[in-house]
This record gives sequence, structure tokens and C-alpha cells, in this order.
Amino acid sequence: MDEARRQRLRAVIEERQDTYLGWLLDACRQPSVAAQGTSMTEMADLCELLLRGIGAETRQIATAGYPVVYGEIGQGEKTLSFYDHYDVQPPDPLALWESPPFEPTIRAGTLYARGVADNKGNLVARIAAADAYRRALGPLPLRLKFIFEGEEEIGSPNMHAFAEAQAATIAADACIWEAGYCDTRGRRQFSLGLKGILYVELRVRCASVDLHSSWAAIVPNAAWRLQRALSALKDAEDRILIEDFYARCVPPTEEDMAALRALDFDEAGRRELYGLPQFSQGLSGDALLAQLSFQPTGNIAGLWSGYSGPGLKTVLPHEAACKIDFRLVPDQDPLELFAKLRATLDAAGFEDVEATLLGAEHPARTPIDHPFVQVVVETARATYGHEPLVQPLSPGSGPMYPLCQMLGIPAVSLGVGNEDSRNHAPNENIHLRDYWLGIEHIGAIIDRFGKASGECFGGAVS
Amino acid sequence: MDEARRQRLRAVIEERQDTYLGWLLDACRQPSVAAQGTSMTEMADLCELLLRGIGAETRQIATAGYPVVYGEIGQGEKTLSFYDHYDVQPPDPLALWESPPFEPTIRAGTLYARGVADNKGNLVARIAAADAYRRALGPLPLRLKFIFEGEEEIGSPNMHAFAEAQAATIAADACIWEAGYCDTRGRRQFSLGLKGILYVELRVRCASVDLHSSWAAIVPNAAWRLQRALSALKDAEDRILIEDFYARCVPPTEEDMAALRALDFDEAGRRELYGLPQFSQGLSGDALLAQLSFQPTGNIAGLWSGYSGPGLKTVLPHEAACKIDFRLVPDQDPLELFAKLRATLDAAGFEDVEATLLGAEHPARTPIDHPFVQVVVETARATYGHEPLVQPLSPGSGPMYPLCQMLGIPAVSLGVGNEDSRNHAPNENIHLRDYWLGIEHIGAIIDRFGKASGECFGGAVS
Repeated sequence: MDEARRQRLRAVIEERQDTYLGWLLDACRQPSVAAQGTSMTEMADLCELLLRGIGAETRQIATAGYPVVYGEIGQGEKTLSFYDHYDVQPPDPLALWESPPFEPTIRAGTLYARGVADNKGNLVARIAAADAYRRALGPLPLRLKFIFEGEEEIGSPNMHAFAEAQAATIAADACIWEAGYCDTRGRRQFSLGLKGILYVELRVRCASVDLHSSWAAIVPNAAWRLQRALSALKDAEDRILIEDFYARCVPPTEEDMAALRALDFDEAGRRELYGLPQFSQGLSGDALLAQLSFQPTGNIAGLWSGYSGPGLKTVLPHEAACKIDFRLVPDQDPLELFAKLRATLDAAGFEDVEATLLGAEHPARTPIDHPFVQVVVETARATYGHEPLVQPLSPGSGPMYPLCQMLGIPAVSLGVGNEDSRNHAPNENIHLRDYWLGIEHIGAIIDRFGKASGECFGGAVS
Repeated sequence: MDEARRQRLRAVIEERQDTYLGWLLDACRQPSVAAQGTSMTEMADLCELLLRGIGAETRQIATAGYPVVYGEIGQGEKTLSFYDHYDVQPPDPLALWESPPFEPTIRAGTLYARGVADNKGNLVARIAAADAYRRALGPLPLRLKFIFEGEEEIGSPNMHAFAEAQAATIAADACIWEAGYCDTRGRRQFSLGLKGILYVELRVRCASVDLHSSWAAIVPNAAWRLQRALSALKDAEDRILIEDFYARCVPPTEEDMAALRALDFDEAGRRELYGLPQFSQGLSGDALLAQLSFQPTGNIAGLWSGYSGPGLKTVLPHEAACKIDFRLVPDQDPLELFAKLRATLDAAGFEDVEATLLGAEHPARTPIDHPFVQVVVETARATYGHEPLVQPLSPGSGPMYPLCQMLGIPAVSLGVGNEDSRNHAPNENIHLRDYWLGIEHIGAIIDRFGKASGECFGGAVS
């Protein structure tokens, strides 16, 4: 985008600040918490209204859960899609919010509201960018597809089925994924992939009822049984013992490592923030970076048995359970590993330990040398005035595999968050300056990508 | 007690059933959960009220925790004491109760309420027995002392200090201890001792706050750390790994084993009742009996970390904890073993695992050939019409060491429970028939013991 076009785009965004801010405030006023089922219909309708307002054709596509709001606008050789979600995390603990979570409030140029960073700010910015582009620069040079799901915060349980049923609808040459932030020095950061996830609950039952603990001499204790079963799944060095667990893990390339190093991960600052004398296994440097981004995890997210109240209770618990989330890296397969988890427990004599699959998602990533990554980086450099950072694989998860990777669509995750946006936590926020720049950046991507030569983007993501 | 006296006693108990049941219902309506501090004053006052109602002199003796309710009534050469407790276990899990735990409910001759078996049924039965005796047979032939503590279910933390300060107050020739049950064939069972206890809480802290589980690749997880620390305390065969843990354990004598065999422990019935394919380590026969009565335990009574609600939450918990009760046998020493537990954790590299002492009690026992045991057995035979069973050492715990053994007072534990009284568990219960007979049995002991020759009971318990 030449400088004249950029100035025209910027001017329109500035002129229409009140409008674009108003759209976002309206979105943030909806308490669209999927986990609690509040305002989901209202929020889906509002998304459709905003899309229609800029001239898009829209529809709500039913799923087994909340519908996907779908919108299309523009014509051209290329298609760029946006994946966002209109649901948000529950707002509690409410007492820690400085202003009510669903009454968006601006203090010193920062907008506070549940969901403003994750990810209504991005969702609305993308609609605003299409609007600003048309007003500033004329017809869109490509087709835009807006895919707004309503269940991201509850694990996107219906996105696989949706993607299979709607493959033609969501087909695109590239996708801008939901969210992005800054590092502590204010540098924009993009991510090229997401870890997958395997979420299981393990449950042990011994006796048929809880007993007085005097029976512990001869009656098996479910908590001890679970404790032993867990020993069969991980060793003392944090190595996961599920058979073939690491077999499909693709190690980072030198280019990946270089990108990780460029992130300038602040080890000491992060350790201090989290109160840690050291990271796991005393890792640091390249080994730490590789571990964080390219190694899978097995995290006990919850563990419970018997009495956890104050003081003494002498009970022999007949049941014990835990939740474990395994974050997976390319090319691990969650369902294959769930079967291996079962086999590993069985082989160690824990056939009685019940394993329930609560969630599964494949990892997904776009190679760092994909041409679309360059489009995003170049336009960011021009918009923000500094070199952005690229994270080859984010340690979080999301439905990027069914919506992009399975369909061969390269995806880059970026957005209007900052280094302390407090996603999922009280006082979630974005800086308004990041919002205006984020709208401009999307406009620049539309411009640049709409004019890119076709052959650069024909290749599927491997 | 001759047959005429027994009939007079029985007639009074029958006449006053409504009164004695009313006392018990009132007691069971008090949610006197010491661990939660609810209704403790109300319950102590109710105990005093009931004792005064039968003419006893009473007072509440302050301790560092809840007071001991003390009552005295009667005159004679001998003194018989009753040890009971007015506190109960927490009622949870509430959902598994068929009627609310503190709304005592009678279904088919069985009374359901938290604490009715452990041990309000016994506490009230002993007051009722003194009342019935006086109404049926005239003045009590001995002095009765009622010692009702308020902290048995939280490990009797103040009974050592109480016993030392009040040695003269609680001096007696013999003591009836709090509780007793039936075997699955309905045979009354007494116990001559109690295991000791060491109750600890282990707590692990890693990061300073809970984190998004994407950090699990490099941030230590408190639940996994606790899981590993537990491996240092017990092996896969249930053997406790604390240094010298078994060094002081006194094995059962041949007489002890004979008494254990006479219990006719119904292995198959008990396994069926508790839904167990087998007992721990597949034990049966003499080995099972010796294990249950004469081996110490290490029971996880509670275990918790992170998220235990429905569905998925991807959190990395920064804290994990568990409660463990070790039941000890003569001559294990709880404080010595607590120090060894600490040393064992340290030696295994778990200096960071915090161990807090929540309760400690020595084991205690009265020899099987003590004359007071014969008084209890003979009167039981006459009351119940069958030969009672004697358990040399009960697998439960209590402050028998400071209140009896340290003062040379022989003690027999007996009471109105049944084979499935569900102590500490939902739907705790007693059969009303056992309650009436339990009152009668105490009356018969008062009669027989009040008239026994002095020299039989001079000997201290070793």
C-alpha cells in the first residue's frame, strides 16, 4: 500500500472513530458467556447486524451448539477469511473488576470489558477494516469471509463437524486467526500455529462407599490408587510415559529457533512474575524456548478425593479423580494418544482406572516461510513502524486444525491486545490506540493480499 | 442383676421410650461439627441440660478448644466413668444422604442422622441408663462420671492437657469408652483398645498464582509435585516408607489372635458390603485379621488441587495438598513418627513439601484378661442373650491413652451401633432396638460393677 492510500485509509478510520468505537462498546455490553448460556442469541444477532451494516451477506449456520455467524463481502481472485468468536469467558471473580465487566469503560485510553481482548476487539476491528477500506479506497480487491463461532471458550466442540459440513463455505486462500498481543516492550507479536489438546478425566473407584479410615488397613484407598496410576503416566523428570507419546513430535527447525530467539523471552522477568526459583528441570535459553513452544505437556488441571475442608476428617475415600490436559505439538494426534493412554494404563495394571475423553483438538501450524506470513509481517512493519515478532507455535489451543490446516489454508493469529490484556481474568482490556492501528493493519493486509500474485498462495499448508 | 431387677429396669426403659428417644433426636438435630465450628456451644449446653435433668452435678471444663462437659452422679465405693464426645464428623457429601443429616429420620426402626452412631446414641444412652436405673432400682450403687469432649472428630487435640490438669476429676476404677457395634451376624462386639493416630496435611506450592495451562511446558505443576512426594511415603504394596515406621510395632499374642478369630470376621460379607473384589494385597484369614487390628495404616483422607468442577478448565494449579491419617499400634509414638516423616521427605528431595501436624494420639489398650472386661462380657451376655465378642485392639482411634491408660484406668469400648452404621459416611444410623438394649446394658453394668468386690479392680493397666 503506498503512502497516499495509507493516509486515505487512516483518515477514514480517524473520521469514523466514534462509529467504530460504538460498535465495539455495543459488542462488549453483551454478556455472551457460552459456558453460562447468557446473551448468546443477542450477540450472534448483533454480529450479523454489524456485518449487514457494511454491506456483507450474512447467515447464521446452525451447529449442535451455538450457531456460527457467517458473512461474505467483496469480489476478487483471492479469498481471505477471518476466524473470531463471539463468546467470552465467565467474568468471575467479579469483586476484582475495577469497573463492571459488561459495562465497557475507558480509563486513560484503555478500554476495559470482558471479552474486549479475547476477542471482540478483533472481531469488530475486522468488520471496521472492511468498512474503512471501501470508504477510503473503493471496492474490496478480494473476497472476505467472516467466520464467528460461539463456543471457542468452551473448547469449540462443534468446529470439526462444522468444518466438514461447510468446507466449501469456509474455503479461503488465507486466514487471519482470532488474537494477538504485544511483548513487554510493545512489539506486535503474531503466531503461526496452536498446540493441540487432549483433555481427559481419570477416575478410580475402590469400595462402593466412603468408609471410616480405620478400614484403611485392609480396604484399598482410591486416592492412593490414582496416585499410583499417575506414576504410570509421567516420570520424575516430567517425561510422559504414554507409549509412543513423543513419536510424532516434529522438532523446531533452525528458522523456528531463530524466530523464538527473536521473541527475547524475558526469563528472569517471567520467573519473578510467577514466583519461581527456576523453570521446570532448571531449563533456560534455547532449551527453554524449544520446550515451551515445541514440546507437548501433560498438565494435572484438577485432582480431588475425599475431604478437603479445614481440619481433620478420617475418611477412606472410595473415589478419586483428576483432569489432565495434554497440549500437543505437530504432528501428534489426540485420538491416537487417547488410545495409547488407555493401553499404557492397562499395561501397568490399571485396567480399573476409568479414562474419559473430555476434549480433543489437533495441533496446527503454518510454516514460517509461507508467503502469507510475509504479507502480514510487511504490512505490520508499515502500520506499526517496528519489526513485528513471529511465534512459530503458540502454546495455547484452538480449532485451527479443522478450520484451516485440514483445508490447506495458511493462518496467522494477530490482534489488538497488549502485553497485559488480562484474557480470562478481571480487568481485561485493550488500548484504543491498538484498536485503531489494528483496523488499519487489517486494511493494509486486504490491500496487499488482494493484489498479491496468485501463485504465491496456491500451496496447501503441509 | 437378678431377673426381677432386670425386668423392672426394662419396664422403665420401655415406659420412657418417648423421652429417651426425644433426648437423642434433640442431640442429633445439633450440627455440632467441630471441624466447622457449628453449634458447638448449643450442643455442649444441651449435654449439660440432659445431665442436670437426671440430677447430675455438671460443669463445663474449659480447654484450649471446645469445653469438656463433665457430670457426676451417685455415691459408692467404686467409680465408673463414661467417655463420649458431643462433636460429629462433617456431613458431606450431602447429595448422598437419603434424609438430611441433621434432621434425624426414622425409617423401618432405624434412626438416620450424622453422629447418631458416632457417638450421640451412646452419649444419650448412658444418661438415659442412669435415669432408668434410679427410677427402676433406686439410688445408684456407685459414682458415675460423664466426660463428654467436643473435639474427638478433630483428633482430641486438648485431651492430653485436660487429662493432666484434671487427673483427680476423671479418676475412676473403670471406664466405658464411647462406641461399639455388631458383627454382620448381629453379635455385640467390644473393644479393649484403640489405635493411635498421626494426622498430617501435606502442601505443595510451585508458582505464586494459578496459570493458563499452556505454561505447563516450563512451569512446575503442584499436583504432579505432590503426586511424586506421595511416592516417597508408600510403595505399590501399601508398605509405608517412613524410616523406622514399623520398628516399635508389637505383634499380636496367641491370645489376641484367638480373640480375633472368635470374631468370625465375615470376609465375604464385608467385601460384598463394601463392593470389593478383594481386600488390599489379596489378604485373608489370620493375615487379614492381624493386618486389620495390629498393623498401622497410612490413609489419604483428602487430596485436592486445581479445578474439580464439571467439564474442561485448562489451569495449571500452583498449589496442591492432601491429608493423611496414619493409624498407629502399640507402641508406636506419633510425634516421633512425624519427625521421621519430615526426615523421609527431606531425604527424598521434598524439602519444599510442607508437612503440618493436625493431630497426634498414642495407641492404648486394656489386657484381655482384666476383670472389668469380664463384667462387661457377663452383663452383655444377659442383656443381649448371646455371647459378645471382644476385639483386643480396635482399628479406630481416640484419646484413650491420656484419659485412661496414663491414669491406669481399664477401658472397654462398647455401644449401640450396628454392622452397617456408616460412621463418618452418608446415612449414618443406629437401629432403635440396639438403643433400648444399649441403655439396659449400661444399667446392668452399673448394677454389677457397683457390687463387685474392690480388690478385683485395683490393678493399673500396663
